[in-house]
Amino acid sequence: MSAPIHELVAELGDDVVVTEPDRMAGYRYDRAHDPDAGTPLAVVRARHTADVQAAVRFAAAHLLPVVPRGAGSGLSGGSSAVDGGLVVSLERMTAIDVDPVTRVVVTQPGAMNAQVKAAAAEHGLWYPPDPSSYEFCSIGGNVATNAGGLCCVKYGVTTDYVLGLEVVLADGTAVRLGGPRLKDVAGLSLTKLFVGSEGTLGVVTEVTLRLVPQQRPTATLVATFAELDDATGAVLDITRRLRPSMLEFMDRPTINAVEDMTRMGLDREAAAMLVVQSDEPAGHAAAEIAEIEALCEKRGATEVFTTDDPAEGQQFVTARREAIPAVERTGTLLLEDVGVPLPQLGALVDGIAAISAAREVTIAVIAHAGDGNTHPLVVYDPADADMAQRAQTAFGEVMDLAVSLGGAITGEHGVGRLKRPWLGGYLGDDVMALNRRVKDALDPLGILNPGAVFD
Amino acid sequence: MSAPIHELVAELGDDVVVTEPDRMAGYRYDRAHDPDAGTPLAVVRARHTADVQAAVRFAAAHLLPVVPRGAGSGLSGGSSAVDGGLVVSLERMTAIDVDPVTRVVVTQPGAMNAQVKAAAAEHGLWYPPDPSSYEFCSIGGNVATNAGGLCCVKYGVTTDYVLGLEVVLADGTAVRLGGPRLKDVAGLSLTKLFVGSEGTLGVVTEVTLRLVPQQRPTATLVATFAELDDATGAVLDITRRLRPSMLEFMDRPTINAVEDMTRMGLDREAAAMLVVQSDEPAGHAAAEIAEIEALCEKRGATEVFTTDDPAEGQQFVTARREAIPAVERTGTLLLEDVGVPLPQLGALVDGIAAISAAREVTIAVIAHAGDGNTHPLVVYDPADADMAQRAQTAFGEVMDLAVSLGGAITGEHGVGRLKRPWLGGYLGDDVMALNRRVKDALDPLGILNPGAVFD
Ligand SMILES: Cc1cc2nc3c(=O)[nH]c(=O)nc-3n(C[C@H](O)[C@H](O)[C@H](O)COP(=O)(O)OP(=O)(O)OC[C@H]3O[C@@H](n4cnc5c(N)ncnc54)[C@H](O)[C@@H]3O)c2cc1C
Ligand SMILES: Cc1cc2nc3c(=O)[nH]c(=O)nc-3n(C[C@H](O)[C@H](O)[C@H](O)COP(=O)(O)OP(=O)(O)OC[C@H]3O[C@@H](n4cnc5c(N)ncnc54)[C@H](O)[C@@H]3O)c2cc1C
Repeated sequence: MSAPIHELVAELGDDVVVTEPDRMAGYRYDRAHDPDAGTPLAVVRARHTADVQAAVRFAAAHLLPVVPRGAGSGLSGGSSAVDGGLVVSLERMTAIDVDPVTRVVVTQPGAMNAQVKAAAAEHGLWYPPDPSSYEFCSIGGNVATNAGGLCCVKYGVTTDYVLGLEVVLADGTAVRLGGPRLKDVAGLSLTKLFVGSEGTLGVVTEVTLRLVPQQRPTATLVATFAELDDATGAVLDITRRLRPSMLEFMDRPTINAVEDMTRMGLDREAAAMLVVQSDEPAGHAAAEIAEIEALCEKRGATEVFTTDDPAEGQQFVTARREAIPAVERTGTLLLEDVGVPLPQLGALVDGIAAISAAREVTIAVIAHAGDGNTHPLVVYDPADADMAQRAQTAFGEVMDLAVSLGGAITGEHGVGRLKRPWLGGYLGDDVMALNRRVKDALDPLGILNPGAVFD
Repeated sequence: MSAPIHELVAELGDDVVVTEPDRMAGYRYDRAHDPDAGTPLAVVRARHTADVQAAVRFAAAHLLPVVPRGAGSGLSGGSSAVDGGLVVSLERMTAIDVDPVTRVVVTQPGAMNAQVKAAAAEHGLWYPPDPSSYEFCSIGGNVATNAGGLCCVKYGVTTDYVLGLEVVLADGTAVRLGGPRLKDVAGLSLTKLFVGSEGTLGVVTEVTLRLVPQQRPTATLVATFAELDDATGAVLDITRRLRPSMLEFMDRPTINAVEDMTRMGLDREAAAMLVVQSDEPAGHAAAEIAEIEALCEKRGATEVFTTDDPAEGQQFVTARREAIPAVERTGTLLLEDVGVPLPQLGALVDGIAAISAAREVTIAVIAHAGDGNTHPLVVYDPADADMAQRAQTAFGEVMDLAVSLGGAITGEHGVGRLKRPWLGGYLGDDVMALNRRVKDALDPLGILNPGAVFD
């Protein structure tokens, strides 16, 4: 039953095919730190598409699980290793090529989101999607999870920028889908099908992304509120009329965790804080921010600070981006990613507070509020078995709450392994069966990322 | 072998299930007027999703072809009737419901694009995608073809706005995919898979679309050029730095056909004309148009006209929108929809002129130039068999040319029946096989729009 991995080592070399447990240790977990992550047979550190093809062909021949892995920043256990399987790491495939005339970038999957942004910026261009993790998540991982971020409220998510892909299929065939054309409807929309497929349909080995002109300098507003409802009410007032380029939310536990880490003088008493930006052209950004200021004051904001100095504004954005690491310092986390239709944002945030009180666990809430996408972080001490149990209960209850409010169990992090038990209930039998039909058609042997998304 | 259609008539009534040849005649062709369109067994004029389900179940039981039909404005024979099949018309399902807080519209598929836009506008909101046919194409047809349009150069295509769908599958099951949430990555991206599937995977019975704030008033520029290369060069100069909200192109045969119809005083001698708009905020739109003016003049434009009066600008946009009907008055058309990466636009336009000369048929070219998406219209007289043959040859040569320039055989109209012979060559065997696997998984009996996209 054990596959002759030495054959793959012989084919690709032991620099590519790593089998020493020590060197493999760093490829077992993603940032969800799933204690159930397995021990792989080998890690294939692919140099190019042909290495990926060789690995997948080997896996298909020996019926081995294949876990594609980008930078391992995922929060749903999607790149947790599987016992006896191959981890196919894309970290070495990092070439980036910007075409400023066509306004696209062709990038290998291992390049970091931040590197793609930087390469585009050299040509005065911009790749908008900006997960908080943009400095340490790969573009392949972004495509595989259809990653969101902070500016998505105005600029959309990863799929909105993906024009083309090269994908290695479950039998090792490499196919090109789409390309550097702004419009192409020839055949089914397979490019978009692979976006968000979390490594369950194929391994992404190249990505063609649409770019837009560089973002204009942003003006920033920070507002604090004494009541959660006022903060979420302000979010609705804002999105009803305006289209900020960022609209983020942090609750009190989050503010305090960030303040503990940064000592930047945030208001520890506030129930919630909003960070809002406008990137409208000169003159108009200030006007948009002034309108938002008025809306926040009408909702009884305790303090409102505005600046049109991008560097000053950036400090608050960084504070927001550091929220997950800051809360991670206070305990072990179960990371939620629930989204609701915007009008339900207040009900979701209130309901989470109630679950937190009932289960006696801290739940720190941060949110891409303008999208209705929240990240309740359930904090617990793994040494306290009772608390760990209550945290697990709360984790499920938050998802049930979101679904009961017309929401989704994951807005941007993906189902991975940790949210899989809730997927069928969320989608319902018919849609789950439809997912399964597509999965079986593309991966009949079930070797691609087994246990993620699908049973 | 003939199916007991009276059973379906009995079930749904003869107002819904039409079998009289006279009443069915209007449901046989789309705007491509394919002479090979078949004669259906019945037309089902569905009132609600349950009617569609009943029709599809009947078709599945009796292995009948099902051709979903919106407004029949398609240009690729995608809704041509199939002999002995059912046409499922969505024309009666036209309810539209705007939710201004969530900024989405939930619409039935038969509503016209223009009606959806109007409903959104009542709430100060905007549904951007704007095919030239927006007044007489259905939103379901737009979804099924992933329709483009004029403002797509800045605002993207239909798929970028589709958040959710209700779809009747090949076995009659109705499923809901996605919904009124700006972010939802739970499960495979099936919503996007159905967009652009041209009725081959399911029948769309409801659509949830993202809306954005109403577009600002537009400033307009019209420029004429004595040389094709100067016009296409200007397009590249513009897109390299700016992001107009419209960037359209018409060549001499098109200008003359439009002028014949409208008598609005267009320059009949010009080799090409560009219509460009900016919707930047007050002050900035005029600046953007002035920059575009300078770029056109640098490329030797023979005349440049600008206006910041939206009504005056609209006349030229209307002239552009009427281009296909205007050219239709000069003969029978074979409608192309080829797209290339932008830097190849000049080579494509020049190559089309060469094919036109060699085959001695007029090819009028209009283009969503900013997207690299062109509509060469091959004009011929069907009574002239030799000319009809040359037109067919030219039609194929234009697609071959586009593919050789890295382009696509269809940018927005879809493959339908008329471009199907070119699909396999364009996609290649592996990608075609992948398309086929998805198709077979979702429509194992092959009853959904047979002959369109797939053999
Ligand atoms: C502090 C912090 C903040 C975050 N903020 C955000 C945020 O704002 N928005 C957001 O969307 N996410 C966020 N994330 C989550 C994470 O960064 C994203 O999911 C990211 O897209 C994962 O990229 P990765 O390269 O690290 O992928 P990995 O974690 O390596 O993998 C993620 C999934 O994608 C698959 N995969 C990876 N590469 C490929 C490939 N080339 N081909 C096929 N499948 C592949 C894996 O199998 C796995 O299922 C955050 C994470 C952290 C730690
Ligand atoms: C003058 C003119 C200008 C045009 N300009 C443009 C343009 O700028 N951009 C552009 O993209 N197109 C354009 N078109 C083409 C056409 O209008 C679009 O393709 C439109 O999306 C078709 O919509 P429809 O409702 O008429 O669909 P139909 O023609 O009825 O059907 C088109 C395809 O969609 C399928 N379909 C329709 N409804 C459904 C449904 N509810 N569920 C599943 N499948 C369905 C049909 O089976 C068929 O394959 C133009 C057409 C004309 C005549």
